[in-house]
Amino acid sequence: MNLRKQQGTSSIALEKPVYIQSAASIAGKKEGEGPLGNCFDMICEDPLFGTDTWETAESTMQKEAALLAIGKAGLKPEEIRMVFAGDLLAQSIASSFGIAEMGIPFYGLYGACSTMGESLSLGAMAAAADYGDHILCATSSHFASAEKEFRYPLGYGCQRPLSSTWTVTGSGACVLGTQPPSFRSEGDSMPLRKGRCCAAITEITTGRLVDFGLKDSLNMGGCMAPAACDTIYQHLFDFGRTPSDYDAIVTGDLGSIGQKILLDLLSEKNVDIRQVHQDCGMLIFDSQAQDTHSGGSGCGCAAVVLCAHLLPNILSGKWKRILFVPTGAMLSKVSFNEGTPVAGIAHAVVIEQKQVS
Amino acid sequence: MNLRKQQGTSSIALEKPVYIQSAASIAGKKEGEGPLGNCFDMICEDPLFGTDTWETAESTMQKEAALLAIGKAGLKPEEIRMVFAGDLLAQSIASSFGIAEMGIPFYGLYGACSTMGESLSLGAMAAAADYGDHILCATSSHFASAEKEFRYPLGYGCQRPLSSTWTVTGSGACVLGTQPPSFRSEGDSMPLRKGRCCAAITEITTGRLVDFGLKDSLNMGGCMAPAACDTIYQHLFDFGRTPSDYDAIVTGDLGSIGQKILLDLLSEKNVDIRQVHQDCGMLIFDSQAQDTHSGGSGCGCAAVVLCAHLLPNILSGKWKRILFVPTGAMLSKVSFNEGTPVAGIAHAVVIEQKQVS
Repeated sequence: MNLRKQQGTSSIALEKPVYIQSAASIAGKKEGEGPLGNCFDMICEDPLFGTDTWETAESTMQKEAALLAIGKAGLKPEEIRMVFAGDLLAQSIASSFGIAEMGIPFYGLYGACSTMGESLSLGAMAAAADYGDHILCATSSHFASAEKEFRYPLGYGCQRPLSSTWTVTGSGACVLGTQPPSFRSEGDSMPLRKGRCCAAITEITTGRLVDFGLKDSLNMGGCMAPAACDTIYQHLFDFGRTPSDYDAIVTGDLGSIGQKILLDLLSEKNVDIRQVHQDCGMLIFDSQAQDTHSGGSGCGCAAVVLCAHLLPNILSGKWKRILFVPTGAMLSKVSFNEGTPVAGIAHAVVIEQKQVS
Repeated sequence: MNLRKQQGTSSIALEKPVYIQSAASIAGKKEGEGPLGNCFDMICEDPLFGTDTWETAESTMQKEAALLAIGKAGLKPEEIRMVFAGDLLAQSIASSFGIAEMGIPFYGLYGACSTMGESLSLGAMAAAADYGDHILCATSSHFASAEKEFRYPLGYGCQRPLSSTWTVTGSGACVLGTQPPSFRSEGDSMPLRKGRCCAAITEITTGRLVDFGLKDSLNMGGCMAPAACDTIYQHLFDFGRTPSDYDAIVTGDLGSIGQKILLDLLSEKNVDIRQVHQDCGMLIFDSQAQDTHSGGSGCGCAAVVLCAHLLPNILSGKWKRILFVPTGAMLSKVSFNEGTPVAGIAHAVVIEQKQVS
């Protein structure tokens, strides 16, 4: 089955597995107090990350996550062949400022909260085609910079509807390559490997923009669920699989309301993912105790949950194969104010446990 | 020379030529009155493109350019395997709304005015790796949506310093693939081919973010020139070439002031591109007669000049090999107001004339 060129498909079966050589996550204080608090590499208590502005805080966080991932792989920045990164801010300034200083060939992305899926997809495509030994994929979001960008000044203390999600302050970064991760000479690196177990990207399904006509920017789960449905359905169709072929199908940040809609939409297509579905937005916060309503969101949400929770579950042997499906809502404050609907997009990557020698 | 994986390089020599199977350009009224006015596929006299807002106007223009390029290649949208597109607006809404309706697997980019270079680079990498037979690369900018996004309300009638550039209203789109463009059954397609002559992307050099500490958003040429210098120098170094190996080295939108800085910076490195340098921002307007000061800018500038002027010169045999180097300035109104410097980036692609049977 040559899926790569096949018309009508949205999927690529990579010619060789692309290993996630290392993964790093940095999260904010609130995320550190949530259910995954013990899993992050670093929790920063200062929401400004020692800087003067929310935007610089986010840039700094993303750069630190990138440096951490590079270091864990036992590499130096100059050994990274190219980086795929993006964020939620206008003109992706969190990515272009932080990582700028590292001098790595740079491809800027915009995929809203699906960015980790987009960057892993493009990074894996590039690695599998031998365009580089080490490729960095990174993204971030910050509660305060996102509120400023999309909603109201924090000082207003606006009430949030129950459908709203809480933008995660966090950044995740992965180094990809076709060689399995290995311990480098110094011995102080922490590649993504447990004994012979590694995690590798083997397949990708590229998302399409799906517009259901929803206009409510405080119900992002509802706006993104149709896109998640489209990508998951297309993925299963392209590979001729059923949900039971996966130990987990993990969407990005639909939250509890978006999850209900996704399950309903897939039911209408006779696909039942109830047994295996999880959502990063629901995993990262205890939404009752932490008052985050529908759940967590933001590019950083799927990224840090992947690096801190999903990948360790693959290494530990709990899961052999998962479908990771970050979801994004395409809107800006300008398009929102102009009454344009919020289209969604979801990029899926298959991550499998691989035994290496 | 295996440039693909080589550490320290920023370049990739593609395994096989990636043909530009078709190219389309749509421009606004002012661009239509400029020196290249006769070359565009379509000139729209109505700056709103029949819509209600500048953003929707830009979306519409980009979608029309994409459809035109797809049609010229004799294809239907469903035959496009994936699209790489982006624009200048916050959250890239011009790209995510217009092209959304076409239902093509979509990768959103943000590379400021370097976006055509970024999309052609990623599109060529994907095509050369056999990830799809037909890959669409598109971008756009619109004078009014860009002024609204970055500067002042048009109604203020602000004076513009002489270092400023005029954002081009225009959109360019190309269909890429490893098969040479051919006339399809219907006979009404207009692939990018003249007899046996075609244009193909053969090499790419990925840009790095270069920050010279400049903070003047009304001197974008100055902010981007160091990045153009970095990419051009790195490209020549990676391939062991001199400027005379190119019939033209064409930067994106440095304008006349940025050009001077670029030539100076390269002189300091003992590289002289004076004989072959051109700049899309200087080609598109008669800056004296059209009062555009330093020249044209915006993602659409390099894109429409490529499609309407550079590619035809390659097909006609005037040029055998050019280096196309769109340049971008990484800023947002937030980062500008916070006093952050404007980093630049430039992505280069080599486009060569190929004779096919």
